[in-house]
Amino acid sequence: MNKVAAVSFGNTKFSQEDTPIEQKLLESTKNLFENTSNLDQKDIDAVLVSTNDNTKYLGAILSELSGIHPKISHTVESLCNSGTNTIVSGISYVASGLADVVLIAGGDRFDSPGQILEWDKARGEFKHPIFWASIFSKSYKRNFGATDEDLAAVSAKNHKNAKNNPNAYSNKEFSIQDVLESRELTSDLRLYDCSRPCTGSSAILLTSEQFAKKFTDTPVWITGIGQKTTSAGFTKNSEFTQMESTVESGKAALSMAKKNPSEIDVIELHDAFSVCEPLALEDLGFAQKGLGYKMTKELYETENNFVNPRGGLIGSGHPLGATGIAQTNEIVSQLQGKSEKRQIENAKIGMVHNMSAAATSSTVLVLES
Amino acid sequence: MNKVAAVSFGNTKFSQEDTPIEQKLLESTKNLFENTSNLDQKDIDAVLVSTNDNTKYLGAILSELSGIHPKISHTVESLCNSGTNTIVSGISYVASGLADVVLIAGGDRFDSPGQILEWDKARGEFKHPIFWASIFSKSYKRNFGATDEDLAAVSAKNHKNAKNNPNAYSNKEFSIQDVLESRELTSDLRLYDCSRPCTGSSAILLTSEQFAKKFTDTPVWITGIGQKTTSAGFTKNSEFTQMESTVESGKAALSMAKKNPSEIDVIELHDAFSVCEPLALEDLGFAQKGLGYKMTKELYETENNFVNPRGGLIGSGHPLGATGIAQTNEIVSQLQGKSEKRQIENAKIGMVHNMSAAATSSTVLVLES
Repeated sequence: MNKVAAVSFGNTKFSQEDTPIEQKLLESTKNLFENTSNLDQKDIDAVLVSTNDNTKYLGAILSELSGIHPKISHTVESLCNSGTNTIVSGISYVASGLADVVLIAGGDRFDSPGQILEWDKARGEFKHPIFWASIFSKSYKRNFGATDEDLAAVSAKNHKNAKNNPNAYSNKEFSIQDVLESRELTSDLRLYDCSRPCTGSSAILLTSEQFAKKFTDTPVWITGIGQKTTSAGFTKNSEFTQMESTVESGKAALSMAKKNPSEIDVIELHDAFSVCEPLALEDLGFAQKGLGYKMTKELYETENNFVNPRGGLIGSGHPLGATGIAQTNEIVSQLQGKSEKRQIENAKIGMVHNMSAAATSSTVLVLES
Repeated sequence: MNKVAAVSFGNTKFSQEDTPIEQKLLESTKNLFENTSNLDQKDIDAVLVSTNDNTKYLGAILSELSGIHPKISHTVESLCNSGTNTIVSGISYVASGLADVVLIAGGDRFDSPGQILEWDKARGEFKHPIFWASIFSKSYKRNFGATDEDLAAVSAKNHKNAKNNPNAYSNKEFSIQDVLESRELTSDLRLYDCSRPCTGSSAILLTSEQFAKKFTDTPVWITGIGQKTTSAGFTKNSEFTQMESTVESGKAALSMAKKNPSEIDVIELHDAFSVCEPLALEDLGFAQKGLGYKMTKELYETENNFVNPRGGLIGSGHPLGATGIAQTNEIVSQLQGKSEKRQIENAKIGMVHNMSAAATSSTVLVLES
């Protein structure tokens, strides 16, 4: 398997903008070109688009709009982890030798059709993701003695981190009290416990070792890849105190990279809802079972931003097809020392955790400078 | 790059059936399991779905329906060549070592949203594919002296071949005269010059060399891969007498496989409309420029079925996301000696040609027994 580098990235602001998907994808691609010295359209072998948008042929459309004539172009969709699925697909093209330079652009609009879980008949009328998040929240609190306040700390922390991310959807700070007082959606979930669907796009450039040198002096190597699909239907999950697909993909990624959690300097994890952050911290091995909420609260109190430095999904917004790419871009940026106010000192090894549909599938990546 | 084998396949009947996409995908997957000795759900590392359907998360849904818990699952879309794009993606997972066994299922419904080229603003109101096919037909006839009768021979031949394909949409034979007398759609195109959108699904199993032995004594090796996207918009093509993306991907696939056209024993090529077959025969190097129509007419007259033995898209039907997989399955079947009445004697080397949207992108594969 050939080595694969992430060499550069592009992002757009995440917002409620009513912009065509093609335009958003082009915006992040343009930003990537601006950020990448020596990149010529002719260098690019593959253009992969990550989205839940219903528009067809976006790989070819983005190629034409950006003057690229790739060998490979298509769209990848897997709901909220479309982004990292597309990245792993891009990795496989480079690792196999079928491509040397892969451009990946992900995006969705505020009204993306991927937001409602229409296909899961077992959910009855409860097809909005707040329902699964609500069940996870209730179960987490009941089993581990966490409170609404403990979970609200996740949101307060990630909104605070997002203030240092100029592309974030939110730029307001909210106290734990503000989160608790926000609109009640279910008895276990308030508005600010939720990430916000929005319009946005992120792009990343993956290359072989040989080509990486042309584009950057600070390539970031993707050394660990873990993926798992346990089911499509939420009710097929056996427990609501653990995200099984996250456990398995985390183990696989760390094992492939020959790393343990204590070696990770910075993590982007999939806080679609407050409860997801403590769960993921436990499932990925950063906290003991049932103690993730204490860790996240301590991070908030000590102003330590090594978990979700760009503000996570709750602070940055969640344009589905862009999310996994935006997460990966943040880790690449951190390992390249480009994260400005958010920069974690001396970050050398990072992790991305991205999942879909009540954690029925997860992707975990380990990246190293 | 690790060697990649196609070891087995599954198909459904192509029809006008009003069946949910999930059910069609499951049907071809079940057929694949029936056709594959020793295949256990646990063997499968990746489940990739090829479709233009708007239903989300179909990779995970198909996995759950078929009792598979893969590492990798997602959907791939690239209009009419979604199928071969998904196959090449599957190849890259195996070739890179990220997966050993990949299940690919493609399908679409008769009312697939991929049939109308909504995104190509330059087409004005002429968004149906018959308009580009009509322009290609007029240009082909004008430049090379072919007649409507010559092009109708493609349809007559492929409908005849389809009679030996139990899964084909059509099982009627039509004479050249029947095609000429079918409903006029444009001044250069009649109803039977067109492939029919329909409901159908096809599945294929790709494996590494090591795993191939477990499932078959007659693996088929994918030795040549060529892909090219020239544009998304039809009017960006420079000529209407040549399909540039097909020329480039054909050359790339033959070069990778170290083969020349005279060594190919059987071809599945993308006859979305009659004119596409002579064009593809020329662009892939099987006929001289401007003489493809004479070749296809001779094949019809001599009852030689080495081009589109299963009846092509015109005879078999064109359920968009299934097509590239159904084409590849036919070549695998021919090289495994399983094509019964359609079997081409001693077929050892085959080719697949699959394209999208006025040939703005193409995939060509070379397979060897």
